[in-house]
Amino acid sequence: MHTQPAPPADAVIVREVGLRDGLQSIHRTLATDHKLDWLRAAHAAGLREIEVGSFVPAKLLPQLADTAELVAVARTLPGLVTSVLVPNLKGAQAALDSGADLMLLPLSASHAHSLANLRKTPDDAVAEVGRIRALRDASGSRCLIEVGMSTAFGCTIQGRVDEAEVLRLLQAALDAGADRVGLADTVGYADPQQVARLFEKSFAVAGDRLACGHFHDTRGLGMANVYAAWLAGVRRFDACLGGIGGCPHAPGASGNVATEDLAYLFASMGAPTGLDFDALIALRARLAQWLAGETLHGSLWRAGLPKTMLSA
Amino acid sequence: MHTQPAPPADAVIVREVGLRDGLQSIHRTLATDHKLDWLRAAHAAGLREIEVGSFVPAKLLPQLADTAELVAVARTLPGLVTSVLVPNLKGAQAALDSGADLMLLPLSASHAHSLANLRKTPDDAVAEVGRIRALRDASGSRCLIEVGMSTAFGCTIQGRVDEAEVLRLLQAALDAGADRVGLADTVGYADPQQVARLFEKSFAVAGDRLACGHFHDTRGLGMANVYAAWLAGVRRFDACLGGIGGCPHAPGASGNVATEDLAYLFASMGAPTGLDFDALIALRARLAQWLAGETLHGSLWRAGLPKTMLSA
Repeated sequence: MHTQPAPPADAVIVREVGLRDGLQSIHRTLATDHKLDWLRAAHAAGLREIEVGSFVPAKLLPQLADTAELVAVARTLPGLVTSVLVPNLKGAQAALDSGADLMLLPLSASHAHSLANLRKTPDDAVAEVGRIRALRDASGSRCLIEVGMSTAFGCTIQGRVDEAEVLRLLQAALDAGADRVGLADTVGYADPQQVARLFEKSFAVAGDRLACGHFHDTRGLGMANVYAAWLAGVRRFDACLGGIGGCPHAPGASGNVATEDLAYLFASMGAPTGLDFDALIALRARLAQWLAGETLHGSLWRAGLPKTMLSA
Repeated sequence: MHTQPAPPADAVIVREVGLRDGLQSIHRTLATDHKLDWLRAAHAAGLREIEVGSFVPAKLLPQLADTAELVAVARTLPGLVTSVLVPNLKGAQAALDSGADLMLLPLSASHAHSLANLRKTPDDAVAEVGRIRALRDASGSRCLIEVGMSTAFGCTIQGRVDEAEVLRLLQAALDAGADRVGLADTVGYADPQQVARLFEKSFAVAGDRLACGHFHDTRGLGMANVYAAWLAGVRRFDACLGGIGGCPHAPGASGNVATEDLAYLFASMGAPTGLDFDALIALRARLAQWLAGETLHGSLWRAGLPKTMLSA
């Protein structure tokens, strides 16, 4: 028997990343009008951080070619932090031009994944963080720079990823000018004890600049990993409505943790997320129509809230 | 940031309950030959506790009418603890006659669920535990008596279940002669913090006689709840291959936590269960054929083991 900590039930921030991480893994291009409906409905459901796209060359990801248009609309939504993914200096310039509030820079802890995904070594990616910081500062923009540590818990190409390398790269990213860092289980390899251990060590490196947990549910451990990260002190998580964003190496496998299930986890524990379940489930149903043929995931939409959480 | 306990990676026992809890919720009757194939294959995959059926009147659950036949075969499998569900004294006599190693007696913490399910109040069910204990002792049998506390985390009929009532009934069941007790989230209402809290309080009541966690994945929190119970010190869990055993109130919703995913959770954390993943996944595929038309659940079967866990 072990005594467990009881973290305070303070608020949890959910960043909806379906419009980027979710759609990126789906070859079909969702019409901009549907994306804008999604964006507005997600905001209306209470989401206050949304990753709306990625400033990558349109020939690489035609699905996300309308990112600037989405940022423009997102900026008009009250209280919304508009997040975009940025793979390099050119993308950062586009992000700054767009007026996004936050740019997420991927940095792979796996050398092999970094070369395959970004065509850079991790240290070259860190150097790019430094250049992007200089660009941001010179521009006078207040756009936040967040570095997302991909494959922090393992990699489909390289296999094991050394924790010491994750910690070294976290420190390097902060030294290069990242405002915030986060840890991502990009391929669904993490287990809860590993999550607990690596977040604890990462907090020791980054303190409160460690500000995001990004988990996939590829092998059914998504929610357990989120819970472990929450116990370790994480209060901001990425998620995708309907759990989209599956792994290209495992067709049909679950993708990112589902926004609606994540919100339910925290609501059930008394940690407010500010999200409206009915609105999320209704939006998920529209998403299922827009993406007909794609596999959506998650559990809450089918079972509904427990009687104990329904208002009288 | 919170410091987390790191429980020792000692062995975890998985009790396969698909042949009882899983099939009970499926109206179709699986042929006895298929059940015997399932039983033998589960044993061959490393399972050393299997709940093979229930001694209830055949007119109530015709799916489980062949329980005595399954016990007879299960007893021939080396090292297997053969478990059966027993709702009353008559069932207990049948269990003792069959030579089962363990009888699981359900006791609902929810008064409303107890009346609906067992047609007894919880205190009348406790009195029956006492009569079953006397019967067992008089018979000279060494069959273990385990009381499973149903709806310990909430109830679809009554809603909230008072923790003090759970603890009172645990003590009463032990006083009446139960050898062991366990807590069950029968309807998928539990959240991980509730699991942590209630198991901690229950260990204070029952000590090491608290020996089972039974979780459903109805709302996606099954694995997170298992992890929370494991952190609290639980080392024995119920599960169903393919996550069968869905909730009658939510058609298509996930059922019990999936055996293969549970085994993966513990293997990934370095806690051995002795289970063979290839054998479990192969058996799940046969189950999917036998139960064609039923919804199976779980994630690992689709994604496979991570590269970090594959032998060279």
